[in-house]
Amino acid sequence: MKKRITNADRAEVLVQAMPYIRRYYKKTVVIKYGGNAMINEDLKHQVMEDIALLSYIGIRVVLVHGGGPEISSLMNRLGKQAEFIDGLRVTDKETVDIAQMVLAGKINKSLVNLLDHYGGSAIGLSGIDGNMIQAEFKDERLGYVGNITMVNARPIIDILEKDYIPVIATLGCDEEGNTYNINGDTAAAYIAGALQAERLLMMTDVPGILRDKDDLSTLIPKISVEEAKQLREDGIIAGGMIPKVECCIEAIRSGVKNVVIMDGRIPHSILMELLTDEGAGTMVTGEIDNE
Amino acid sequence: MKKRITNADRAEVLVQAMPYIRRYYKKTVVIKYGGNAMINEDLKHQVMEDIALLSYIGIRVVLVHGGGPEISSLMNRLGKQAEFIDGLRVTDKETVDIAQMVLAGKINKSLVNLLDHYGGSAIGLSGIDGNMIQAEFKDERLGYVGNITMVNARPIIDILEKDYIPVIATLGCDEEGNTYNINGDTAAAYIAGALQAERLLMMTDVPGILRDKDDLSTLIPKISVEEAKQLREDGIIAGGMIPKVECCIEAIRSGVKNVVIMDGRIPHSILMELLTDEGAGTMVTGEIDNE
Amino acid sequence: MKKRITNADRAEVLVQAMPYIRRYYKKTVVIKYGGNAMINEDLKHQVMEDIALLSYIGIRVVLVHGGGPEISSLMNRLGKQAEFIDGLRVTDKETVDIAQMVLAGKINKSLVNLLDHYGGSAIGLSGIDGNMIQAEFKDERLGYVGNITMVNARPIIDILEKDYIPVIATLGCDEEGNTYNINGDTAAAYIAGALQAERLLMMTDVPGILRDKDDLSTLIPKISVEEAKQLREDGIIAGGMIPKVECCIEAIRSGVKNVVIMDGRIPHSILMELLTDEGAGTMVTGEIDNE
Amino acid sequence: MKKRITNADRAEVLVQAMPYIRRYYKKTVVIKYGGNAMINEDLKHQVMEDIALLSYIGIRVVLVHGGGPEISSLMNRLGKQAEFIDGLRVTDKETVDIAQMVLAGKINKSLVNLLDHYGGSAIGLSGIDGNMIQAEFKDERLGYVGNITMVNARPIIDILEKDYIPVIATLGCDEEGNTYNINGDTAAAYIAGALQAERLLMMTDVPGILRDKDDLSTLIPKISVEEAKQLREDGIIAGGMIPKVECCIEAIRSGVKNVVIMDGRIPHSILMELLTDEGAGTMVTGEIDNE
Amino acid sequence: MKKRITNADRAEVLVQAMPYIRRYYKKTVVIKYGGNAMINEDLKHQVMEDIALLSYIGIRVVLVHGGGPEISSLMNRLGKQAEFIDGLRVTDKETVDIAQMVLAGKINKSLVNLLDHYGGSAIGLSGIDGNMIQAEFKDERLGYVGNITMVNARPIIDILEKDYIPVIATLGCDEEGNTYNINGDTAAAYIAGALQAERLLMMTDVPGILRDKDDLSTLIPKISVEEAKQLREDGIIAGGMIPKVECCIEAIRSGVKNVVIMDGRIPHSILMELLTDEGAGTMVTGEIDNE
Amino acid sequence: MKKRITNADRAEVLVQAMPYIRRYYKKTVVIKYGGNAMINEDLKHQVMEDIALLSYIGIRVVLVHGGGPEISSLMNRLGKQAEFIDGLRVTDKETVDIAQMVLAGKINKSLVNLLDHYGGSAIGLSGIDGNMIQAEFKDERLGYVGNITMVNARPIIDILEKDYIPVIATLGCDEEGNTYNINGDTAAAYIAGALQAERLLMMTDVPGILRDKDDLSTLIPKISVEEAKQLREDGIIAGGMIPKVECCIEAIRSGVKNVVIMDGRIPHSILMELLTDEGAGTMVTGEIDNE
Repeated sequence: MKKRITNADRAEVLVQAMPYIRRYYKKTVVIKYGGNAMINEDLKHQVMEDIALLSYIGIRVVLVHGGGPEISSLMNRLGKQAEFIDGLRVTDKETVDIAQMVLAGKINKSLVNLLDHYGGSAIGLSGIDGNMIQAEFKDERLGYVGNITMVNARPIIDILEKDYIPVIATLGCDEEGNTYNINGDTAAAYIAGALQAERLLMMTDVPGILRDKDDLSTLIPKISVEEAKQLREDGIIAGGMIPKVECCIEAIRSGVKNVVIMDGRIPHSILMELLTDEGAGTMVTGEIDNE
Repeated sequence: MKKRITNADRAEVLVQAMPYIRRYYKKTVVIKYGGNAMINEDLKHQVMEDIALLSYIGIRVVLVHGGGPEISSLMNRLGKQAEFIDGLRVTDKETVDIAQMVLAGKINKSLVNLLDHYGGSAIGLSGIDGNMIQAEFKDERLGYVGNITMVNARPIIDILEKDYIPVIATLGCDEEGNTYNINGDTAAAYIAGALQAERLLMMTDVPGILRDKDDLSTLIPKISVEEAKQLREDGIIAGGMIPKVECCIEAIRSGVKNVVIMDGRIPHSILMELLTDEGAGTMVTGEIDNE
Repeated sequence: MKKRITNADRAEVLVQAMPYIRRYYKKTVVIKYGGNAMINEDLKHQVMEDIALLSYIGIRVVLVHGGGPEISSLMNRLGKQAEFIDGLRVTDKETVDIAQMVLAGKINKSLVNLLDHYGGSAIGLSGIDGNMIQAEFKDERLGYVGNITMVNARPIIDILEKDYIPVIATLGCDEEGNTYNINGDTAAAYIAGALQAERLLMMTDVPGILRDKDDLSTLIPKISVEEAKQLREDGIIAGGMIPKVECCIEAIRSGVKNVVIMDGRIPHSILMELLTDEGAGTMVTGEIDNE
Repeated sequence: MKKRITNADRAEVLVQAMPYIRRYYKKTVVIKYGGNAMINEDLKHQVMEDIALLSYIGIRVVLVHGGGPEISSLMNRLGKQAEFIDGLRVTDKETVDIAQMVLAGKINKSLVNLLDHYGGSAIGLSGIDGNMIQAEFKDERLGYVGNITMVNARPIIDILEKDYIPVIATLGCDEEGNTYNINGDTAAAYIAGALQAERLLMMTDVPGILRDKDDLSTLIPKISVEEAKQLREDGIIAGGMIPKVECCIEAIRSGVKNVVIMDGRIPHSILMELLTDEGAGTMVTGEIDNE
Repeated sequence: MKKRITNADRAEVLVQAMPYIRRYYKKTVVIKYGGNAMINEDLKHQVMEDIALLSYIGIRVVLVHGGGPEISSLMNRLGKQAEFIDGLRVTDKETVDIAQMVLAGKINKSLVNLLDHYGGSAIGLSGIDGNMIQAEFKDERLGYVGNITMVNARPIIDILEKDYIPVIATLGCDEEGNTYNINGDTAAAYIAGALQAERLLMMTDVPGILRDKDDLSTLIPKISVEEAKQLREDGIIAGGMIPKVECCIEAIRSGVKNVVIMDGRIPHSILMELLTDEGAGTMVTGEIDNE
Repeated sequence: MKKRITNADRAEVLVQAMPYIRRYYKKTVVIKYGGNAMINEDLKHQVMEDIALLSYIGIRVVLVHGGGPEISSLMNRLGKQAEFIDGLRVTDKETVDIAQMVLAGKINKSLVNLLDHYGGSAIGLSGIDGNMIQAEFKDERLGYVGNITMVNARPIIDILEKDYIPVIATLGCDEEGNTYNINGDTAAAYIAGALQAERLLMMTDVPGILRDKDDLSTLIPKISVEEAKQLREDGIIAGGMIPKVECCIEAIRSGVKNVVIMDGRIPHSILMELLTDEGAGTMVTGEIDNE
């Protein structure tokens, strides 16, 4: 690209981004980071660069991340056998300790480091810090897998007010001092709700919601909560997309303006979603008309 | 351009602007607006769009303008004969009233209006507001032509603190209640000094300082104050460029980091100067090394 | 007076002004300036001196001005023929440009200059600055004559918070970038309403509302909105007084405590109205009793 | 006066006070209140009314008072015999308790009450509150008569910042919990110094410094510290005037702009001193020229 | 104690105080100081030391005091005969002056001094300062005995915000400038209500409310407002306890969380009440359950 | 203890802690947490309880921790062989990742969780967050072992200003995005210096500096920097105590008031050190006299 794009073009591009910049100026955008964009090193760098940029053009970005494969990988190396009940991993004390190390130690601080590298100024938090994500046992047989009971937005807001990008590992805690592993999508939805965010971006490894899952041309660009419920009944929203869409609906129900199920495999998908006329996936919105 | 530049390209361009955005983040940039960029309607719109954009990406822009040709035009329509002493126009009371109307009334408010139109939030001021530009008679024979005695930066800072773009018409005032017409370049240099600005952009109708005025390839991209003085002695800086360069030197002397004599005829020259690797003219700087 | 008033008398006068000073302390008073007080140079100086004083004794004064005769005068000098429809002047693009020059350039900055001269610290604004007065076409045949659609009080409050006296030229603007000439009385009423002002003073060239327009002794000192409506029905409020009274009613309806139609021809009428027991004209008030 | 002074006159007087109001706007003025102005009920009311007024026109007034005769009077009623050493009253524990009751209880709160009555908002303090006036024994034989070792301006500034008029009874304290009676003039000088006051007004029962103490026409309106020292050497400043002048010199030495030995017997002498061209006594100033 | 309590014990005690410290952190506690704790010098010192400590561990303490016996004592010394109507002392102008001297002069400043001595930072106020306690005549025959009409919490809050301990003498004032003697318990209840205090501690010379006044073992540790009313009907609350309990009820009615009738004769009763599991008297509370 | 310590005793203990509470009120105290106090679960709980308490009595506590044994333990479990050069562990990329997981993930968040459990409000940070600890390679052969080049106190101060207890894992970062393992004592010394802390407490597993390392009675309670240097020359400070003492000296050199090498094995040693007359170890201080 460097060859064919002149500086005049660059200026033109910047100017054309203006209406989008204005739209999100001083607004809060929560990004649920995960999937391929977290595994592929190039994509990871691009996402962090994009987020650093967003912080400079006046958007209050909150980055929420899980860390699935790395937890499993460390468990394997430590010789832990995974055990499952109804498809959910049994999380004993040692497993939740591993999750804590991987999420709050390895991934969280590495993302903070990358953001700093790209000029952002970030503080890494977990749901334990400032009692942010309060949780309870989901099912005693599953061990330290948590249901969120409350998100305390205060520490996130405090960090935003001091002009840092909060990077949040999705652990939870309770009054007895237990730590819980929390589903990342659910945590992002609760956090976006607690912050009354302008937008929640859910990075996934799919193009969005497709009417025919084998035909990319059937991508649904925008959908209301009502329509989403109908599509689920019709079986069009199915499999792994069901919990994602439920998180979207939860977020909108608790006050987020709209949520985008976004294809995180596309380079700079965040910038394209926020700063161009090209959406990157399916937007779920409370009322289809006022968008 | 819309055809050949994809949204992926757009994202890339935005990301590449990042180091420049960081460089000017929360810094003050004074733009002396004038010449062709003020006469050509398309350029005028582009400049205002660029400035609105700068205000959104965290740059504290101050726009300073004169209004040469429009003053003459209204004088002509009102049947006033221009009279000159040593090349400077004699400015009687009626003439300074006309200047006040054109500068603070017509041009200033039209620029504010355009900035608002492009999403900026601007407040138009003149050197009279808040006693900003204090002046005295330059030469009694010339009438109300003023030398600046002091610039009070307080009202500009107050307006910046309230998140508006100050647009300043270069009139001056004194304690007796006289109004003066003030040279725009000089006023911009004093204002940039009073604000300890990061950069002063002088929009002109020339490409910058040329070693051979007939050969564009001899453009000097960067020059120190010392070198500028030498070039003037050598006759390379001559004619109308002399007072421009003197304003640059005055600005740097009073604390501005660096000044660019910029070709305002090029579309989006401000954005290119500030947000790309392509300078747009000649930069005058205190010490050539630390840039 | 200097002869017969001793310094002991002066002290006594100051002390007697105390209850009035307390009444308006930190309150917002909007003054619609116009008529003879704007044409007569002595009166103009006195008004500005009075306003500077009010700003020192803790009153938040907002000065709103039109500029009728000066617009016509410049139009004449430029050879423009006035054209009227139903008594309203047709305002083509050139005419509104002239209005902008005269109002925002000449008159506005001259008033700022005078206020500064008398020790006030003023910033001149127009309805264009900070998108303050938003307007739309009143009647397409009339051209750029505007109806106010909204007054954005933010820029006025911002200026007041920085301890300046806002001086406002009554132009309007819209999203398309059009500029409108706005009736000064109407603008003052809307501005006072948007600021929830304590009092709006309408400076006129009449003594107030008279029961018998030829008999000064029939001046009505205080009147409720209800009574004013009745008087209009009865034909006692007639002619040019009708739109004035309508502005008063509009102001009170939108939250101004009370409005005074004040005789601006009397020296220091503002001070007498605000700081002595002598009202200067007719006060219109929401409920006659609670005053 | 009510007869011969019209409201037009009143407006004129207010306007003429403007330059004086500007001169003291947001400045701190310390008033040492005492003598006849404290004994005569009419004068007392006038002084409090004047001070309330000053607080409304933006002057930060600090009122410092002693209470001489009332202390003696209560001592007499309680049957205490006064005992003197070198002209200074021996102050045993019971006597300093009486001083505390009279100064901080009776006089201080009565002044606060009067200020409130005239629309001021006052808080009564003593040198004990917030450890304001720290003192030590002047002479063991004298008992609880204190020399000031330090004035802590913090509580006074805190009270001013909350927009109250601080009224200060001149008691002192030390770390052992002792209370001291402190000379009022000295305390006022130290307080004015600690506040870097613009002016200190010392209310007395004399016209000021007279060259010939029997000839009022020999009043010295302004005097430098140097001249004051000379006059004392020459015996022109003598008797009770010596300690007063020493307080003035101490105040100026510690940063007060100037000090006025003022005739408190004249009605509204404070207003005349501050808000008219008529000084009320002798001004002592650091350098005679820059006034 | 110094012998048998080790530093390890001390640490343990501090840690065990933690839940209590958290409970009152940044909360307002009003202490009505009186009775034996005010007469006994040792107790007085202990109370002031306790209060200074409370101010350091983040509790916003407000100290309210009367001064009964000392007023009578000074009256006697001045030869005034006490006169009573229905058991209430007739308070002529001289008597209220004496009360003002004793309360606001002697006692108030002595308490401030003691608090300073123990490391607290206190400001002494009376109900006159900042127009805090507004009152009216209770009964014309009684003279200057006041009923509270309004408590203005502003000056107390202002003093708390500046990090001082407000010490309040219970005098009242009205718009005519009269001063009133106000019952201390009543004033404390009104002040606690105006501050929406977390707790009001009433220091008394009894152990609390006893079911059998001769049997300490019948102390009622906690009681609801409803129960208190019943106990009064049953005659168990009788005599001097009736007005005390009425003050408690008044305080709770106006928003105080709960009130404790506390035995001020026990050393460090305040600390024990607030920072240990041992209540010191009878707590009156709105709803017995939610404590 | 619960038996023999009465509530009266408790009150007494609280009061006696007062001078110590005052001494550290609003001061910053950095605690280097490590050794046995980190391994022993009971001690760990006590330390966190103590720190939560300190945060409530107005001390700004900053907790700095390393995590030695746990890093080795995880390395062992992952089958990593430790390799040493000159006694320092070679830290390859995988090792520093493990350190990051253990320090910033496991230990840091567990401490935050415990502090929350005891009523504190904590935020866990690492030297990576907000670019806090900037480092460079100490010795290329050692891999990711860092020397501190700069500590940026801003993020710590930001967190303190929002009323959280910062808990800091001692990792470092550089501009290239490398992460470094940093010696905990050194990091604590630099952080205390950057914060200009009042005191740095170094928790160790020794009683302090002993003249004869086998005789507890030779503990040196207080020592100047000069004396420490001498003792080292004399061989009395030797072995592992040398780097500890060097950290103390570094901290004092950069502005910390004094440093205590403290015996962390004693229960509540922090409270005893800060809030009683019993020091817990050896205090190193700049000048021995002014303590």
